[in-house]
Amino acid sequence: MSRFTAAVVGGSGFTGGELLRLLVGHPAFEVVQATSREYENKTVGYVHPNLRGLDLRFSSPEELESVDVLFAATPHGVSMQHIDSFRDAAGLVVDLSADFRLPEADAYDEWYDGHTATEHLADAEYALPELNRENLAGADLIAAGGCNATATLLAMKPLVDAGFVSDGDRVVVDVKVGSSEGGAGGGKASSHPERSGVVRPYAPTGHRHEAELEAYLGLSTAFTVHAVEMVRGASATCHAFPGGPVTKGDLWGAYREAYEDEPFVDVVAGGGGTYRYPEPKAVAGTNRAEVGFALDPGNKRVVAFGAIDNMMKGSAGQAVHAANVALGLEETTGLDQLGLHPVGSP
Amino acid sequence: MSRFTAAVVGGSGFTGGELLRLLVGHPAFEVVQATSREYENKTVGYVHPNLRGLDLRFSSPEELESVDVLFAATPHGVSMQHIDSFRDAAGLVVDLSADFRLPEADAYDEWYDGHTATEHLADAEYALPELNRENLAGADLIAAGGCNATATLLAMKPLVDAGFVSDGDRVVVDVKVGSSEGGAGGGKASSHPERSGVVRPYAPTGHRHEAELEAYLGLSTAFTVHAVEMVRGASATCHAFPGGPVTKGDLWGAYREAYEDEPFVDVVAGGGGTYRYPEPKAVAGTNRAEVGFALDPGNKRVVAFGAIDNMMKGSAGQAVHAANVALGLEETTGLDQLGLHPVGSP
Amino acid sequence: MSRFTAAVVGGSGFTGGELLRLLVGHPAFEVVQATSREYENKTVGYVHPNLRGLDLRFSSPEELESVDVLFAATPHGVSMQHIDSFRDAAGLVVDLSADFRLPEADAYDEWYDGHTATEHLADAEYALPELNRENLAGADLIAAGGCNATATLLAMKPLVDAGFVSDGDRVVVDVKVGSSEGGAGGGKASSHPERSGVVRPYAPTGHRHEAELEAYLGLSTAFTVHAVEMVRGASATCHAFPGGPVTKGDLWGAYREAYEDEPFVDVVAGGGGTYRYPEPKAVAGTNRAEVGFALDPGNKRVVAFGAIDNMMKGSAGQAVHAANVALGLEETTGLDQLGLHPVGSP
Amino acid sequence: MSRFTAAVVGGSGFTGGELLRLLVGHPAFEVVQATSREYENKTVGYVHPNLRGLDLRFSSPEELESVDVLFAATPHGVSMQHIDSFRDAAGLVVDLSADFRLPEADAYDEWYDGHTATEHLADAEYALPELNRENLAGADLIAAGGCNATATLLAMKPLVDAGFVSDGDRVVVDVKVGSSEGGAGGGKASSHPERSGVVRPYAPTGHRHEAELEAYLGLSTAFTVHAVEMVRGASATCHAFPGGPVTKGDLWGAYREAYEDEPFVDVVAGGGGTYRYPEPKAVAGTNRAEVGFALDPGNKRVVAFGAIDNMMKGSAGQAVHAANVALGLEETTGLDQLGLHPVGSP
Repeated sequence: MSRFTAAVVGGSGFTGGELLRLLVGHPAFEVVQATSREYENKTVGYVHPNLRGLDLRFSSPEELESVDVLFAATPHGVSMQHIDSFRDAAGLVVDLSADFRLPEADAYDEWYDGHTATEHLADAEYALPELNRENLAGADLIAAGGCNATATLLAMKPLVDAGFVSDGDRVVVDVKVGSSEGGAGGGKASSHPERSGVVRPYAPTGHRHEAELEAYLGLSTAFTVHAVEMVRGASATCHAFPGGPVTKGDLWGAYREAYEDEPFVDVVAGGGGTYRYPEPKAVAGTNRAEVGFALDPGNKRVVAFGAIDNMMKGSAGQAVHAANVALGLEETTGLDQLGLHPVGSP
Repeated sequence: MSRFTAAVVGGSGFTGGELLRLLVGHPAFEVVQATSREYENKTVGYVHPNLRGLDLRFSSPEELESVDVLFAATPHGVSMQHIDSFRDAAGLVVDLSADFRLPEADAYDEWYDGHTATEHLADAEYALPELNRENLAGADLIAAGGCNATATLLAMKPLVDAGFVSDGDRVVVDVKVGSSEGGAGGGKASSHPERSGVVRPYAPTGHRHEAELEAYLGLSTAFTVHAVEMVRGASATCHAFPGGPVTKGDLWGAYREAYEDEPFVDVVAGGGGTYRYPEPKAVAGTNRAEVGFALDPGNKRVVAFGAIDNMMKGSAGQAVHAANVALGLEETTGLDQLGLHPVGSP
Repeated sequence: MSRFTAAVVGGSGFTGGELLRLLVGHPAFEVVQATSREYENKTVGYVHPNLRGLDLRFSSPEELESVDVLFAATPHGVSMQHIDSFRDAAGLVVDLSADFRLPEADAYDEWYDGHTATEHLADAEYALPELNRENLAGADLIAAGGCNATATLLAMKPLVDAGFVSDGDRVVVDVKVGSSEGGAGGGKASSHPERSGVVRPYAPTGHRHEAELEAYLGLSTAFTVHAVEMVRGASATCHAFPGGPVTKGDLWGAYREAYEDEPFVDVVAGGGGTYRYPEPKAVAGTNRAEVGFALDPGNKRVVAFGAIDNMMKGSAGQAVHAANVALGLEETTGLDQLGLHPVGSP
Repeated sequence: MSRFTAAVVGGSGFTGGELLRLLVGHPAFEVVQATSREYENKTVGYVHPNLRGLDLRFSSPEELESVDVLFAATPHGVSMQHIDSFRDAAGLVVDLSADFRLPEADAYDEWYDGHTATEHLADAEYALPELNRENLAGADLIAAGGCNATATLLAMKPLVDAGFVSDGDRVVVDVKVGSSEGGAGGGKASSHPERSGVVRPYAPTGHRHEAELEAYLGLSTAFTVHAVEMVRGASATCHAFPGGPVTKGDLWGAYREAYEDEPFVDVVAGGGGTYRYPEPKAVAGTNRAEVGFALDPGNKRVVAFGAIDNMMKGSAGQAVHAANVALGLEETTGLDQLGLHPVGSP
């Protein structure tokens, strides 16, 4: 198998560590650099105990090596400052921040602060292969989607594609996320005593991921995010009200149509046993997504579910998947991790 | 203070234990009997370690003592079988099951199995004082509301009372609950390894508590319940779309109007600090409810929140509160427990 | 009941908040001041959501009011700087830090930094009434014990009193504690993603609470502390090897002798049911301690257990208990909180 | 690579599912049968949601297929009943129960019930390669060690090998374990509400794994096991008191000597950062063990730590590792899973 050299910029954060975990086990990548200003010269295992055995030390982000692929796992706003040097250093840049996720500069003004490198926006491809596979092949700038947006997009896409839900319809999305979404920075609200056991409406309205749903699914959503007790995971419950009659068979048809050939998406919709609908803990540590639905005849409502590991399918796994597509590799290469059962609160 | 004798039928279950905790600390009640078939003759502390010091043993439910108040904490369907003997034994019966919650026999046929003691339905008063205070005084049969319904009712009542939401409007309710809601019975899905850390859509549609919302708030809801990682707590997030314009000031007005004189309800709506919206862990172990709201101007949406301890405000605390009202006691008697901070995953 | 005015210095920390919870529900105390430099002028409910209803704002620690009792809940090292002004402000000072816990200045040099107010050490009484009740009456400076020391002292005292274990014997103590022990300060290691689910040997050797065991029990211990997944709780498992033969009856005798008249200590030693030995979650939120033992005939070992809520019996509850004793109040006044069952990971 | 056919008897339990997870990802094994009486004809994904994609159904244990390797993941006492048919069906039997763990029939009489297939005991090899690698090559009956014993053996072996601890020395072992250790059976004590957040001394004395420590390390231990809040994980803290002087350098020497060539063991002993000593969550989902030590000069104590995933290094991973050795495969084949960081309470 041909091998590609890779660098991870921002390797000491949570998604940076997840990229390292994936890349060191990936047969087609060779990690040649991981940067961290704070932990320069320390081993990656100093920060990420799961990578203790690894013979790799953080280096300064000031001196980027020339690589085939540069993965940027820096906080929002950083990549847009350094995008020129990133693209100088690598033929393919995969950015995990929000900086290149939206196609229009106007949207940044509305949802984020103003964008300072708008000239790159047209080059950027949204990383989710289930939505954008055809444009990823040969891309040289890829932007991984937001985790909450990803869970929602995967849940809703079959309903939109099948025409059961259209732009005018108001979809209520209620997302539950784990604490890793807040990043490695800490802070009082994310300290263990305060954050444990919460059902906390941390973004009751105005969450920025709404912008991605509008951009990539043409969907207007009433979006609310709750922090709940887990570290990894994002679960989107979408309440949609189709204009016309929809049967359970129609729904099965739509989800099968959307995902039967997708290697990372399972449709889970009300079978027997304990795990009857999508659950984030069933996919923790993996690039898999579980999607599913329930039909509420009384309310003419479809409840659509999407469950992912926010750090994997919602970030680092999605990034590697997109890089596989861009580089012409088998899509599942290096991403065949299975989840754990039983597992607690991953 | 005048004292009332009390019995708890079904004292070894979770809500039965919670009743005992409240009643033994209540200055106006004297517990004279706690029944349990399974644990007959064992101390209540054998089952409920928080009551170790208590000199009280479970007795058989076959021989009920004559008391002023009988609290029935039996599984759904049991009270309706024994309601005659319960009412023979006590002047006031407070039932914590679903058996007398709905005013119409038809509703039981629709949402539960058929009712076998319909002649008592007209006597039963819904226990939630915030909705039904005037009818509780002097009642002789009281039915505690369902926990998920209670969280939702408290969240939505101000919007309905103020006319911002009316019957035709479809409200999406997304509830998150703890594992105590499943009761003490156990079972594979509620074993620790399987239940830990879930975000599990356990009732995607068709939850029976919808019936209470229709009956007591005249509200049609699209209702979904998720199990999340906690033992105690129920949190309702209600997405409502008022027909006309509503301001933040209007909402504050509505919630203050509804709750400013209520001793157990706090309005929490977006102040500073870590706890800016209602959270169940802030009220765990107490009869308090936190309710609040956020306004989403883009979607003309009001997000209403209600957070309670399902075993307290959602069950045993509500029952004792209603008994206080029925007996003419100060409402807060025996219910002044404060929550804990910090606390983990209660 | 006569009423005493009280102040809490350091009211925004975890133990400060716990003191406030106890004191506002205490019939003999009236809280007239709670200080916090960081949250000056904010309500106490801004920081402690369980105290939302309370009409009390933090004031500056620079201007102490004159009160009957001043509770100091400041970080280690702060009280010794301000002890003169604390004692000027109040007839009784109860300090929850380590600053006055040890009787000898030398011990501070060995286990902590040097002490800067040694002239007060002789006045200070150790707060644990089970060890030091007779000296607390009328005391004017009281030092609450360390939480891990308290759990261990309560577990071991009966064995020492009965002569089964004596100074020369090496006792191994393995303590498990919750995250609240680290205080409200936060930091990377105590962020939710890093701290969740740990079994972390955070003090494998050299824990300062060893000094209290030596001072108050004359016991040399091999002491190790692990952080485990809970917010509240400290559980000490003590492995002792009595010099001579000891029977189960002897042990029951020793524990009964030590605790049969103690209002806050339950002996739990191998009965039936689910809760057969001391467990911290059974006493969370309360001033109760569970102690117990098991006998290992093969190894001639006694395993002694002590389980407390580190913030209650291990800190704020112990402080209020001691103040009750010092002031001649009924010992249990304001401390009759019962634990919760079931409860998750408090 | 040559391929071996494999069967998993008892495939619906926790360790059975873990075996399936490992074997389907193992390049040298082909799973041809998974048995389950309860779930016969259901897909393995019905029980184990992490294996949803797998095209494999449970079959009856009555009809075993002929395979190269049979893994038995049945409850204690079952394998000894069926060992003849297991060995008829497969050239290599790897048993994960306690049935063939101890070399002497007498030990079964003492620690378990009497053994009913003692004629096979002499054939059985203990699975832990770090202890018994040389005897595993070519073995035809292998018995995986107990999880608590494994964590302890790995922690203590360097101290025994180096002569710092010998048989006469009494070592205190305090183990903390997750709920998966109780198996998939459920029961009241392991229901989520009761089991959550515990620090529960579930085996204060008399734990059966003591027998393995005696048999394989010649070590007499004072052994206590606590259940703590996690699903996966076993962490042994061993308090040893060497007869003579031992330095930190001596300890590093002993642990390096024992493990420098071991592919699955990392020595973690007091470096910087957040993860300074062995922690089970750092190795969850993997076959890795973290071992380490701290030196307590005052007590002349060595505290030795061993942290594993009880279902992996403590059971299924150990079994596959041993099978790799027995069959002459590269030891790490199929066992290169990395842990997750961050991760909650696995």
